[in-house]
Amino acid sequence: MENNNKTQIIAEEGKQELFIIREFDLKREKVFEAFSNPDILEKFYAPFGNKMVFNHHNYKTGGSYSWCNKNQQGNILCTFNGAIHEIEPPVRIIHTSEFMELPERGHVVLEAMLFEELPNNRTKLTIHDVCFSVEDRDAMVKSGMESGLIEIFKQLDNLFKEDL
Amino acid sequence: MENNNKTQIIAEEGKQELFIIREFDLKREKVFEAFSNPDILEKFYAPFGNKMVFNHHNYKTGGSYSWCNKNQQGNILCTFNGAIHEIEPPVRIIHTSEFMELPERGHVVLEAMLFEELPNNRTKLTIHDVCFSVEDRDAMVKSGMESGLIEIFKQLDNLFKEDL
Repeated sequence: MENNNKTQIIAEEGKQELFIIREFDLKREKVFEAFSNPDILEKFYAPFGNKMVFNHHNYKTGGSYSWCNKNQQGNILCTFNGAIHEIEPPVRIIHTSEFMELPERGHVVLEAMLFEELPNNRTKLTIHDVCFSVEDRDAMVKSGMESGLIEIFKQLDNLFKEDL
Repeated sequence: MENNNKTQIIAEEGKQELFIIREFDLKREKVFEAFSNPDILEKFYAPFGNKMVFNHHNYKTGGSYSWCNKNQQGNILCTFNGAIHEIEPPVRIIHTSEFMELPERGHVVLEAMLFEELPNNRTKLTIHDVCFSVEDRDAMVKSGMESGLIEIFKQLDNLFKEDL
């Protein structure tokens, strides 16, 4: 059965930040692990039948990562590189992220992922992104981010269905 | 003789970003090196007779750092931790920075340092900081940042005086 957890994106006009909010019918430790363990990320973090593949990862405070999404033909659709400011289980991940297919470097996003416990072993995830400009923020919103995230979060629901 | 290079801080009201602009009578490679080499940073990056000391550093793309300022009695005045998103000599450094003496974690700043060549072997440094909130940005501005930076930049001028 489908759950009723909706993906909410808040991007106030003229701001250089956005918020993504999603609840999960999963314990906080489980949701945190899903977003901080590359082996689990690769299982759900690519939408529309694509595949997430890490180029390298060192998921710890002061570490870094690079991953791409490949389509079913194995072609790279996008690559994201970042540095990990902090991983504080099971409450917080703060890292940078850069979409490497842009024509110029430097359009980096600072992202905080906050994991809050809700009653009944549920979890609220709040992703807070800040950009170097309003234009960068607007470009993210227009990139089709929302439909991708909705799909990714559903895939995470399904991945842990057996635990519900 | 004093040079005429002024430190300019632009912090528009209600924004979660700020810009710090300073020119140097030094070649770009020299200014870039000063801000990316911990041994040189320790020589000028603490104002008012204090001393910058690195706790650890790995100055490369995907690396990290931690440093503190100590007063003349050896007491720690402030500590900053961060992850290094990109070091692209001699044009760009992008990293995170967190003031570790705050009562709660998560008030992280994303900082880009851009080094531009000017005529006559001079260099323009533009530091662009973005914060998770306007409040975080305002707190930075009110922290005495400006007087500290003016002093630090003058110390960098003096450090390389022999090269002018």
